[in-house]
Amino acid sequence: MPTTRDDCLAMDAADPLARFRDEFDLPGDRIYLAGNSLGAPPRTAADRVSRTVRAEWGGELVGGWNTAGWFELPFRTGDRIAPLIGADPGQVVVGNSTSVVIFQALAAALGLRPGRRVVVADPGEFPTDRYVAQGLAALLPGAEVRDGTHGGDDVAAVLLSQVHYRTGERRDVAEVTRRVQESGALMIWDLCHSVGALQVDVSAADFAVGCTYKYLNGGPGAPAFLYVNPRHHRAARNPLSGWYAHAEPFAFEPGFRPADGVRRFAVSTPHVLSFAGLEAALDIWERVDLAQVRAKSVAMTELFVELAEASCPDLSLVTPRDPERRGSQVSFRHPHGYPVVRALAERGVQGDFRAPDVLRFGFAPLYLRYQDVFDAVAVLAEVMAAEPWRDERYTRRLAVT
Amino acid sequence: MPTTRDDCLAMDAADPLARFRDEFDLPGDRIYLAGNSLGAPPRTAADRVSRTVRAEWGGELVGGWNTAGWFELPFRTGDRIAPLIGADPGQVVVGNSTSVVIFQALAAALGLRPGRRVVVADPGEFPTDRYVAQGLAALLPGAEVRDGTHGGDDVAAVLLSQVHYRTGERRDVAEVTRRVQESGALMIWDLCHSVGALQVDVSAADFAVGCTYKYLNGGPGAPAFLYVNPRHHRAARNPLSGWYAHAEPFAFEPGFRPADGVRRFAVSTPHVLSFAGLEAALDIWERVDLAQVRAKSVAMTELFVELAEASCPDLSLVTPRDPERRGSQVSFRHPHGYPVVRALAERGVQGDFRAPDVLRFGFAPLYLRYQDVFDAVAVLAEVMAAEPWRDERYTRRLAVT
Repeated sequence: MPTTRDDCLAMDAADPLARFRDEFDLPGDRIYLAGNSLGAPPRTAADRVSRTVRAEWGGELVGGWNTAGWFELPFRTGDRIAPLIGADPGQVVVGNSTSVVIFQALAAALGLRPGRRVVVADPGEFPTDRYVAQGLAALLPGAEVRDGTHGGDDVAAVLLSQVHYRTGERRDVAEVTRRVQESGALMIWDLCHSVGALQVDVSAADFAVGCTYKYLNGGPGAPAFLYVNPRHHRAARNPLSGWYAHAEPFAFEPGFRPADGVRRFAVSTPHVLSFAGLEAALDIWERVDLAQVRAKSVAMTELFVELAEASCPDLSLVTPRDPERRGSQVSFRHPHGYPVVRALAERGVQGDFRAPDVLRFGFAPLYLRYQDVFDAVAVLAEVMAAEPWRDERYTRRLAVT
Repeated sequence: MPTTRDDCLAMDAADPLARFRDEFDLPGDRIYLAGNSLGAPPRTAADRVSRTVRAEWGGELVGGWNTAGWFELPFRTGDRIAPLIGADPGQVVVGNSTSVVIFQALAAALGLRPGRRVVVADPGEFPTDRYVAQGLAALLPGAEVRDGTHGGDDVAAVLLSQVHYRTGERRDVAEVTRRVQESGALMIWDLCHSVGALQVDVSAADFAVGCTYKYLNGGPGAPAFLYVNPRHHRAARNPLSGWYAHAEPFAFEPGFRPADGVRRFAVSTPHVLSFAGLEAALDIWERVDLAQVRAKSVAMTELFVELAEASCPDLSLVTPRDPERRGSQVSFRHPHGYPVVRALAERGVQGDFRAPDVLRFGFAPLYLRYQDVFDAVAVLAEVMAAEPWRDERYTRRLAVT
């Protein structure tokens, strides 16, 4: 028997994560299925950021480096992210963008594997991961980027997403890490589409990177994080060795000496206002049980697939049907994906589109309800029936898709 | 006849920049002479940042990339900074930290001068500039960092600050640029201590970098800027080639193709909340006449030197006496510099200290008054007479100095 809206209301009533929904500032007129692109703001974020401007910057001025704890931001927030990815305190540093921390991890990996000059980054991976690898290879004589997802005799590192940005496929971190490391290569995980959506355990990996503005809700362009396995803390070299990575950042020595531990992977002055948004989000995450998040994520994506396939037969499922092989998103293929996504947005259901033909729907368990999933599919069925690809209003492309 | 407080009040009354003071949120109980370290907040900054969180992030969610113009932030703010450094629109990109943009400029310079493997970065320069150069040299076989400030047959690039962070010495940009370029090397200017304090003209230089949180008042850790001379836009290679640098960032192509112009030096998703603080500051700067800024800066630093030397004979002037060779700061040497700076702060005068013995005082012409300069020296004279170096309260070091 198909799931009804009343079934969904009952599931919401029994949802152990339901209490978190009120902690986010959600638009009343939309169902937001793009939290895998940009998470919704914690209700406390605006005040937190405003306080950072008024009380810290305005009130303390340059003294904020001491009194407001700005100096420790990259390390303090790193320690707060650590439990979300199976790491310990002192193993994660936060700052800069995901592309920058990917560059750091790849360059460090090549340094740790002298003689091996290949970085594996598949064309199917999130483009910036590969672009950064290509930029590094162009800089380093003899270095090259190889397609695929496997290690090998000449491979220094494999860079791979735990959850694929387009298909939503989830990789087996333990199995892939073991296989890559058996080849003598280092394993670098990109957690952008998994952190905050499911339990992550990177403790066997060599490096991991991720953004904080998707499921973590740290705000647009919130700083990225970099995990460095402690076995590499002594030997790994940070290519972006700014003053924050120095053993004594205030000694103003003429020569660079790396700090101990993961601090040697810090770069420079943190973007304090952007960290304020992230800290508001981490205040929520420290009270969240990731097992509950994952259970709800699986239930919501199962429900969405069931209802969408029943009412929209023209959509082809891209995401793996086995929930064990799925992150917290569902992607469908349709030749007119773009106008469908535009028409959905106009009717209050926000998903997104990835060229050439993929409709992407993300499910953020902290603030979405089962009734939202039900209602979103009802709108999707209406939209498909209306054939928006015949309407120029929907086919015209926006700057950012 | 020595300048009196009444003279200072008269100078304030005649100051064409006086109207800007009200546009900043200044502490009522302090004279802030550390705007060369972290500028004071524009009064609009808190609301601007809060609006970015509530109306843009909360109201538009992922749609903010289109509707709130987030995507263009690195380029829009670059075009707003351009007139402050003698550049034209399309020549400046904003984002990341100063250390990161220094890395980009140095790596690009080495790429533009194949066969030349030396980067000149003097030990006397701001430490992070040199640390970054050392990190890059450690990454690139055959590359090396050399002390000094001169070009040469084997020199790819010279990195130099227009105004020295410790001494306040101002270099002649045109003369040094010409000399370095005559040797076949590229000239990279670090404008951290000059942008917003004096007229800058980098149009002859190859690259320029700078932070936006000192005289520009963009907020703690506000994003840095990178100027790339248009003659290098086609050939220069960005080592941090993230998706923002791609010719078609939303095409999700597997291979990197650089964008035209300075856009190829963008890296990745901008830190939107930190940009909001910077934009509040740039709203002020677009109404400022830099010739007036420089005239007031010279007058204030002259006044400070005159009064301090008259009342504190134990201080030795470090900054050049010729105003043409000076930025907007005054540094004195004293064997007990640290406790003097601490005691000054306790009495409401905020300067800072640079090891081993330098007291640094910055003069931000947009919000400081001549009367503040007068009053600050009066407190300085009191503090010196009280010999705070005999008091353990002042000699004990804070984490961030």
